[in-house]
Amino acid sequence: MEEEEVAFDEMASVQRLHELKLIAPDMTEQGIFSEERIKNHVARGAGITLLYAPERVDETILGELETLAKEAGVLSKMQRMQSGEVMNCIKGHQSENRAVLHTAVRDFFGEENNSGPAKEAAAMAKIECDKLKQFLSSIGDEFSELFMIGIGGSDLGPSAIYYALEHLLIKGRKVHFINNIDPDSLALAVKGADLKRSLAVVVSKSGSTIETKTNEEFLRSKFKAAGLDPGRHFIAVTGEGSEMDDARRYLKVFYIWDWIGGRYSSTSMVGGVLLGFALGFDTFWEFLKGAHAMDQVALREDIRSNLPLMGALLSVWNRNFLGMATLAIIPYAQGMSRFPAHIQQLSMESNGKHIDRRGNTVSHRTGMVIWGEPGTNAQHSFFQLIHQGTDTIPLEFIGFKESRFGDDYTFEKTTSQEKLIANLIAQAIALAIGQKSNNPNREFLGNRPSHLLIAKRQDPFTIGALLAYFEHKVAFEGFIWNINSFDQEGVQLGKVLANKVLNRMPSMKSASDPFPVADAFIKHFGDV
Amino acid sequence: MEEEEVAFDEMASVQRLHELKLIAPDMTEQGIFSEERIKNHVARGAGITLLYAPERVDETILGELETLAKEAGVLSKMQRMQSGEVMNCIKGHQSENRAVLHTAVRDFFGEENNSGPAKEAAAMAKIECDKLKQFLSSIGDEFSELFMIGIGGSDLGPSAIYYALEHLLIKGRKVHFINNIDPDSLALAVKGADLKRSLAVVVSKSGSTIETKTNEEFLRSKFKAAGLDPGRHFIAVTGEGSEMDDARRYLKVFYIWDWIGGRYSSTSMVGGVLLGFALGFDTFWEFLKGAHAMDQVALREDIRSNLPLMGALLSVWNRNFLGMATLAIIPYAQGMSRFPAHIQQLSMESNGKHIDRRGNTVSHRTGMVIWGEPGTNAQHSFFQLIHQGTDTIPLEFIGFKESRFGDDYTFEKTTSQEKLIANLIAQAIALAIGQKSNNPNREFLGNRPSHLLIAKRQDPFTIGALLAYFEHKVAFEGFIWNINSFDQEGVQLGKVLANKVLNRMPSMKSASDPFPVADAFIKHFGDV
Repeated sequence: MEEEEVAFDEMASVQRLHELKLIAPDMTEQGIFSEERIKNHVARGAGITLLYAPERVDETILGELETLAKEAGVLSKMQRMQSGEVMNCIKGHQSENRAVLHTAVRDFFGEENNSGPAKEAAAMAKIECDKLKQFLSSIGDEFSELFMIGIGGSDLGPSAIYYALEHLLIKGRKVHFINNIDPDSLALAVKGADLKRSLAVVVSKSGSTIETKTNEEFLRSKFKAAGLDPGRHFIAVTGEGSEMDDARRYLKVFYIWDWIGGRYSSTSMVGGVLLGFALGFDTFWEFLKGAHAMDQVALREDIRSNLPLMGALLSVWNRNFLGMATLAIIPYAQGMSRFPAHIQQLSMESNGKHIDRRGNTVSHRTGMVIWGEPGTNAQHSFFQLIHQGTDTIPLEFIGFKESRFGDDYTFEKTTSQEKLIANLIAQAIALAIGQKSNNPNREFLGNRPSHLLIAKRQDPFTIGALLAYFEHKVAFEGFIWNINSFDQEGVQLGKVLANKVLNRMPSMKSASDPFPVADAFIKHFGDV
Repeated sequence: MEEEEVAFDEMASVQRLHELKLIAPDMTEQGIFSEERIKNHVARGAGITLLYAPERVDETILGELETLAKEAGVLSKMQRMQSGEVMNCIKGHQSENRAVLHTAVRDFFGEENNSGPAKEAAAMAKIECDKLKQFLSSIGDEFSELFMIGIGGSDLGPSAIYYALEHLLIKGRKVHFINNIDPDSLALAVKGADLKRSLAVVVSKSGSTIETKTNEEFLRSKFKAAGLDPGRHFIAVTGEGSEMDDARRYLKVFYIWDWIGGRYSSTSMVGGVLLGFALGFDTFWEFLKGAHAMDQVALREDIRSNLPLMGALLSVWNRNFLGMATLAIIPYAQGMSRFPAHIQQLSMESNGKHIDRRGNTVSHRTGMVIWGEPGTNAQHSFFQLIHQGTDTIPLEFIGFKESRFGDDYTFEKTTSQEKLIANLIAQAIALAIGQKSNNPNREFLGNRPSHLLIAKRQDPFTIGALLAYFEHKVAFEGFIWNINSFDQEGVQLGKVLANKVLNRMPSMKSASDPFPVADAFIKHFGDV
């Protein structure tokens, strides 16, 4: 049974939260930011601890945020999503009308979803996992390099996860990412590569992404020029029946389905082939296990222990009530350097919408700008603005107890890992409590919110759990805002116009479709 | 003679611009976004073309922005900055009180600044350039790898420029960046490196940056463990007289000075040693030449042809009048992938301030959040939000006519480079004009501003000019807002607290300085 959807601004809790924002706690006040506060604002699940004491919330506000979650029916929506209901739709208008089942591709570890669509999806996904395991074992040590050709979701998630787990790279193996239509992307990747011992994975659900098709043909030409048969090196990851689903052209074809959105596809074969080849199938499997564990956490009825829901409520609080326009994701871990770029896509493509699930223009703010770089580097970069700028920037810190390589150094009595953690903690405290000074340039206003996601180490399970934390956080935000987080109509106009502009480029000048504005821009490129 | 400074909000032009914002052109109106508009909104200098037709300006607004520039005396301030006046100060309060002379370290190519301080600074910088040229020639092919140890400005600028010019990497050479205190940063870099044939450049003006010192000692321990004498491999880039200015510990010492801010140091020896080693001295020299050419453009009295000033005025227009909180920098060039991260630091550390040059709290917004990723990848990532989200995000596009490697591919009649350019142009047009539709999910509101910086190719001269464009754009913004863009007091509190937290870490538990809030956080790390 489908529940009624309530517009965000019409919920009673939203009205009350607008009143509560005026009396939100000021963390610079003596005694507020205490040891007890830190102890009492904790959620744990799937190996992750969420510490949210540095957010501008108190019991009343948290209670009202819980009410908001209930009023918006977000737990039921999460349940329906994981059960395979059609959640990707705009009612009353033509839309994708699809289920959203990225949770099914990792639903192999107990507590399986029992709905028909979810079971069916999980069964299909399991076949692909088995195919992958068998394939990886069959190739043995025949290949040492892998080119990953994909863009957007077929690049950002898999590469972010690859770098986060790079310490597990199988000795002698190497991967290259080719994403951009910029020919330099491919030219640099193939430099010095050993094509004879290389695989190429081409990822496109539709089989028609122009960047990916172009780069595939470009790379095939390199293989041919080296006297190699691309059909023995190229692997397709695509929808069944797409033009890429062609065993004559590919060594192997793996499937994805229309219920997996690009930005939610890292745990499908989109991430699987790359991660399995580079890190081993068992590592990929552990990664799925971690993601699945967080899928279960996302179903918890107790909101205070449902990490992604709590994360979503805190972001909605900062966004819609405290008026913040962006969110910085700062991993204190160099290996997580591309994680913010993946979450940037995941969140902004999902929730950068201005109509609700019935096609009405929303009257509230939705998705915020997500950005970030690893700490401590970021402290020496943009943290000046976060501490002393005119806008308040909320932060989502990520930290680990242990380093990845276990190769550490003690300098002036403490290890680098300890220094890293001390800096993370110090930033959260400094932003919250601020500092008074007679010199206005040394004054820190404080009261700047953040929360911390911490875990023991960057192992595959933990990275899977973190990935799913963000997937579900984004979905919960969308449920609260009553928008469709699963389509991306906003990318279409650019695609259409790019083709029209392309028809006016020098090598196509025979084309007759006039476009004077494009011509004027093209002329400037000709004149530089 | 020093001029009177006017507070931003007190300028008559600011009041008028607040009126004009209400009648800013709507680019979705029929006939506004025309061929003529594109022809008439162009500025050229130092090989760069700035196309600003897609900004929400008209002749009246541009005229008033010019008045703003004059009222704020920004050209005189730029002249004074390049002449070595003390621009890095807060009047009436203790502050750094330094000149700001990053332009002097490339003032070797005619039209030299004739002021005493600038000439003196340029002479000192020229000595370092000559030392570098001689040093690079003296080492011949003895070394094949280089570790760059530095953080913040000693990492982001040099690495961004290195990647932008990576196609010019000298055959057989390789570089590694070690920036983060995270021990993984170093552990990954040294994996598989040939230390015997490696140089290590340690960059710290003060000689006491904790991350850099720690990583230096960590790397020295690796050299010693390999039976090598670090003194024959390590190079210092530091202030004269710092504790790193020690010829017994370093193969070579290069100098920087207190009139070079970290984020403005890429054209000094901070970038020089790395870029000279990797790309050759001549490439570094061409890069300086390009930066110097833009320094001259920044002095142009004709505002419409002064690219960085025009860029600054457009950003101030979007920020302070049209109310936009962020700026996305989108290079349509894969090699520029780290450029946004450098500009992020440059801009946010410079202009993330809330007091003016006299120590008064400002009543207007200052530095915005700067973020971005390369196109076309970004189109498949966060462009959904830029097209259809609830916030307006202005964009600064960067594009080149030619690819770097000249290795291109024709697919369906056009090359990849043409497709890249067509996409850039299409995005600027789509964001400006939008699209009506009966399906609300396919409606694009349009009227979203951007401007384009385009050039022929990513050669060293052009990259130098682009770098200096952003340096001066940021300085002009600061001049307009009447803030000090050259200090970074906002990073101090975090440093102080990090030391206090560090004293509470397990290995230091003997320390007596109580800090219960830190203890509570540390306990959570212990418990994960």
